[in-house]
Amino acid sequence: MVQSDQDRAVAELRRLIDGIPVAMVTTVAADDALHARPMLLERVERDASLVFLTHLSSQKTTDVHRDPRVNVTFISDKGDRYVSVSGRASVTHDVARMHEMWNPTYRAWFPKGADDPDSAIFTVTIDRVDYWDVPSSRLVRLWGVVRAVATGQVAEAGEHDTIVFGSG
Amino acid sequence: MVQSDQDRAVAELRRLIDGIPVAMVTTVAADDALHARPMLLERVERDASLVFLTHLSSQKTTDVHRDPRVNVTFISDKGDRYVSVSGRASVTHDVARMHEMWNPTYRAWFPKGADDPDSAIFTVTIDRVDYWDVPSSRLVRLWGVVRAVATGQVAEAGEHDTIVFGSG
Repeated sequence: MVQSDQDRAVAELRRLIDGIPVAMVTTVAADDALHARPMLLERVERDASLVFLTHLSSQKTTDVHRDPRVNVTFISDKGDRYVSVSGRASVTHDVARMHEMWNPTYRAWFPKGADDPDSAIFTVTIDRVDYWDVPSSRLVRLWGVVRAVATGQVAEAGEHDTIVFGSG
Repeated sequence: MVQSDQDRAVAELRRLIDGIPVAMVTTVAADDALHARPMLLERVERDASLVFLTHLSSQKTTDVHRDPRVNVTFISDKGDRYVSVSGRASVTHDVARMHEMWNPTYRAWFPKGADDPDSAIFTVTIDRVDYWDVPSSRLVRLWGVVRAVATGQVAEAGEHDTIVFGSG
């Protein structure tokens, strides 16, 4: 993927998830089941990665060390947009980078500050983004059922599009 | 799990997802990535399974035939509740059951009606439910940061609880 294409894809992703601070992040857990938990998005990097902060001692760190595959889901407050990000996660303890990103409110998670020995940067390299924009009317929103019944068309779950990232 | 415990767990799950008609369902796709897509929940069965309708020809059917592991995520409209259901999915074409569950609006998805040869019942057997109830104030909601900074306690992402299903 040439840089300008990647820039456009990243800009589009930023637009899609604007105003959705919390994602559900699914990992492959040690019991081999798929677990998800809410995480606060720290930033979207220009290199097409999502950055979250977590703890080295957390379950999700253990999970992605074992199996890096993750899905990151964003749902808008109004339920009119669903975004699925497929990628691979890595977790690093990087005090210099924590200092760079540090914000005083982070002390809530890292009582020892940017030097907290348990701090971890959870980075998801994005492979693919799928998203659904759903019309705002609640009836139509429930998958266009009413319109589809009226017109005889098969219901569509809003607009579905895919952004593929990577070197292709 | 004795029946009364399972009944209580199912009742609790129904309460948690009440008013959240659409879930994001994550599967392990053929390209080995974790993909998610919105699905409309049909019902929660008393035997601790989630039922969705889909098509035999859909990608998610292919995915779970290859690898049955799924995660089903529910997020409330207000963003004050996050629910993760871990389980295993099976897909069946069952015309008798489709007739039982049939609702005229379903013709939007299945133009040939309950006998549609591509109809499929997507059933998730629940192994585990994790959920987070987040206080409604937006500032506190963002992971209790403000309160935690004030009190010096490590921030908690709202109340986190787990319901384990199964024969244990």
